[in-house]
Amino acid sequence: MSTAVRLLRPRTDPDLPARLARSAAVREAGAQLRTDAFGAWLAERRRAHRFAVERIPFTALDGWRFDGATGDLSHRSGRFFTVRGLRVRVGEGPSGEWEQPVIEQPEVGILGLLAKEFDGVLHFLMQAKMEPGNRNLLQLSPTVQATRSNYTRVHRGAGVRHIEQFVRPEPHRVLADVLQSEQGSWFYRKSNRNMIVETTDDIPPHEDFCWLTLGQIGELLHRDNVVNMDARTVLACAPVTPPEAGALHPDTELLSWISGERSRHEVRTEPMPLKDVRGWVRDDHAVRHTDGRYFQVVAVSVEAGSREVSRWTQPLLEPRGLGLNAFLTRSFDGVPHLLAHARVEAGFLDTIELGPTVQYTPDNYAHLAPRDRPPFLDLVLRADPGRFRYAALHSEEGGRFLNAESRYLFMECGEDEAPLRPPPGYLWITPGQLGSLVRHGHYVDVEARTLLSLLTTGAVTL
Amino acid sequence: MSTAVRLLRPRTDPDLPARLARSAAVREAGAQLRTDAFGAWLAERRRAHRFAVERIPFTALDGWRFDGATGDLSHRSGRFFTVRGLRVRVGEGPSGEWEQPVIEQPEVGILGLLAKEFDGVLHFLMQAKMEPGNRNLLQLSPTVQATRSNYTRVHRGAGVRHIEQFVRPEPHRVLADVLQSEQGSWFYRKSNRNMIVETTDDIPPHEDFCWLTLGQIGELLHRDNVVNMDARTVLACAPVTPPEAGALHPDTELLSWISGERSRHEVRTEPMPLKDVRGWVRDDHAVRHTDGRYFQVVAVSVEAGSREVSRWTQPLLEPRGLGLNAFLTRSFDGVPHLLAHARVEAGFLDTIELGPTVQYTPDNYAHLAPRDRPPFLDLVLRADPGRFRYAALHSEEGGRFLNAESRYLFMECGEDEAPLRPPPGYLWITPGQLGSLVRHGHYVDVEARTLLSLLTTGAVTL
Repeated sequence: MSTAVRLLRPRTDPDLPARLARSAAVREAGAQLRTDAFGAWLAERRRAHRFAVERIPFTALDGWRFDGATGDLSHRSGRFFTVRGLRVRVGEGPSGEWEQPVIEQPEVGILGLLAKEFDGVLHFLMQAKMEPGNRNLLQLSPTVQATRSNYTRVHRGAGVRHIEQFVRPEPHRVLADVLQSEQGSWFYRKSNRNMIVETTDDIPPHEDFCWLTLGQIGELLHRDNVVNMDARTVLACAPVTPPEAGALHPDTELLSWISGERSRHEVRTEPMPLKDVRGWVRDDHAVRHTDGRYFQVVAVSVEAGSREVSRWTQPLLEPRGLGLNAFLTRSFDGVPHLLAHARVEAGFLDTIELGPTVQYTPDNYAHLAPRDRPPFLDLVLRADPGRFRYAALHSEEGGRFLNAESRYLFMECGEDEAPLRPPPGYLWITPGQLGSLVRHGHYVDVEARTLLSLLTTGAVTL
Repeated sequence: MSTAVRLLRPRTDPDLPARLARSAAVREAGAQLRTDAFGAWLAERRRAHRFAVERIPFTALDGWRFDGATGDLSHRSGRFFTVRGLRVRVGEGPSGEWEQPVIEQPEVGILGLLAKEFDGVLHFLMQAKMEPGNRNLLQLSPTVQATRSNYTRVHRGAGVRHIEQFVRPEPHRVLADVLQSEQGSWFYRKSNRNMIVETTDDIPPHEDFCWLTLGQIGELLHRDNVVNMDARTVLACAPVTPPEAGALHPDTELLSWISGERSRHEVRTEPMPLKDVRGWVRDDHAVRHTDGRYFQVVAVSVEAGSREVSRWTQPLLEPRGLGLNAFLTRSFDGVPHLLAHARVEAGFLDTIELGPTVQYTPDNYAHLAPRDRPPFLDLVLRADPGRFRYAALHSEEGGRFLNAESRYLFMECGEDEAPLRPPPGYLWITPGQLGSLVRHGHYVDVEARTLLSLLTTGAVTL
């Protein structure tokens, strides 16, 4: 055998976990910006990009229309996304049947985070980005947030900065790359490509971008509505491998439990015309549920008041009420565990994905008798806030959702609240196991990924 | 911390790979049967179960009918499976559009293999099982092969023997448990739960069952049409971990390549009425393609001539021509690699899965000019059979497919035939990497799993 050319490499990068841990440990100042100067920087970006977003009637939408035959709402180019109807049947009883509007967006977009070492510490290139659905408009996004329409022929605007780092990356520079689902109650089988790519290129500075360490981003994750959903889901995919002495359930048991949960739920979905969806009505300004629950579909116009000349209109999905997403945690034999929930959502590709212990919009359950309310919801709603290891408000994707905010929590529990043997559909898993699952698509839902990003960035230590 | 009760276990079972390797090394005789006595045993089972299968016209089907409005072929119970139409669009050109019949079977069945140690060696409980579509009718199946209909209320016949070991297994006895796809050109989003469960129970002997080591099964895999598809796919999931010094592409690169392949192909499918499918016609005996290609849907009656009183009729899908499924292999720095192909099949849940280098029915491509034929197909078709490291005929699932046989091959190649940098859509991966992927669903297609089962059982050593 020739020793001149070695083709083989180790299957896993032995240095990466330590490099990520080092970046997570750097919290106060990165190569470019002190963490305590970040607020001023973001405020300055907000002043530089003045945007006005206002609600408009559907008739004022430009390029979007309700189809005469189906009532589906789509763009004349056939791209971006379509709001259509979905008929859902879960299990065999009549209570498991409903119809709802849903966003269909079959294209896979890229959520790309560029990484680079400065003084031996990995930094990540974050962008101050406007999304019309965010209450505060400007939040921190990953380096690139691009639908396929954005970076191909459909979009009339400028190209997406840094997209070339992600469309054809050097394979050995890829730190993470996985197709992940998004909200399965609002999207039909949507997935985005979550990528972290390291570069050694000189990256020219730009006023909307800044390099931050994982630890700095973790500090910012303690603030409400600063780090956007796309950034959080990509950060969750950072292959951090916490040292853990073991787990309550070995990996094969965990995978077997997931297979069992996937098999025991039968979910059948069928797209249908939006105009035929039972229980939902459309007026000039909204497609909404007759009881005022769940969400409504509305239209907005967006106008940039700064140097860029830019104006557009689009539909957005506006949830009713504040979401509540919480992992209950316990430590077993000194190793922290999270109580994962196998959630059925109509828009998931494969029946169930793992969500946090609690993932609900409490308002949608307020009318139910206590015994019909989901497990653990009241426990979290009634808990003394002093018990939360972490609590902050974050927005879901502001390019599709209007004022979609949720409270994200970690809460440590005891046996009386969250037993070692939880009810069916729940399992105790370690953060390391959650991290192993998130290397593959369609295991961990986007709300659980937000909570996982708090662990990968070191915002929360369990 | 109390040392009295240790709740934690290692995330991976440190002993299992060696136990599986030990079983694969035992080839000549297991606890129950010498391998060279197996042929006589199977012949005896074949004599005990005499079955007659004959083709019948659709009008002679009992309980099955073509729907008046849609032309879909289904069972009156609404269970088992339905043959309906599927409209497929791959990419954006007109050549990527077609319509075809497809089998829809949304229920997840169980393919379960029971394992038990005899004299310190793992044995697997195989069943001599009749499937009407197999040319030789009786082949070796896993312990349990059950649709949900089989083991719930729909089936009128006897319960499924040993099913209780798989419906509620003791979690720590599960060696493998994963939902795997089946033929994506014939099934629409079908998946089955592939399970290997170890037991220490006393299992009463039964004349249709025998305990074999992995090595014995590997020997039988050298014979044509003995080990059925369901057995092969479960055996592929045995968590064998070959010692490998590294790989051409680290795991993150491999996963990134898969994400890229999934993103670059856009596949849109839409179920449609069978009667409207263009290019296909129905007569009294078959639904077939007007050019006689691909497959036809036919009906059979099955009659048991032995002690059991049993007769039924059902549709089967009959492919035209013999399949050819081959992995090209090379050794790099002493580590064997397989050339995997990212295949688009309309029935896959998620755009692409990894198949062998060559996976085609050559007859369907015979009319094409050489430059339009798929890569590597002619290389394998023209190769001197003396070059094959392995060659045998195996049947696909005989409960759904009639005379669906393929030639399975491993063929070692050089740089001029299969280059280190293969064409787009192909990647060199190690058997260990294929084994890591198969722990999760929807990565490795059923044909590649048959070839992988030759490695997990030791039938083939690369």
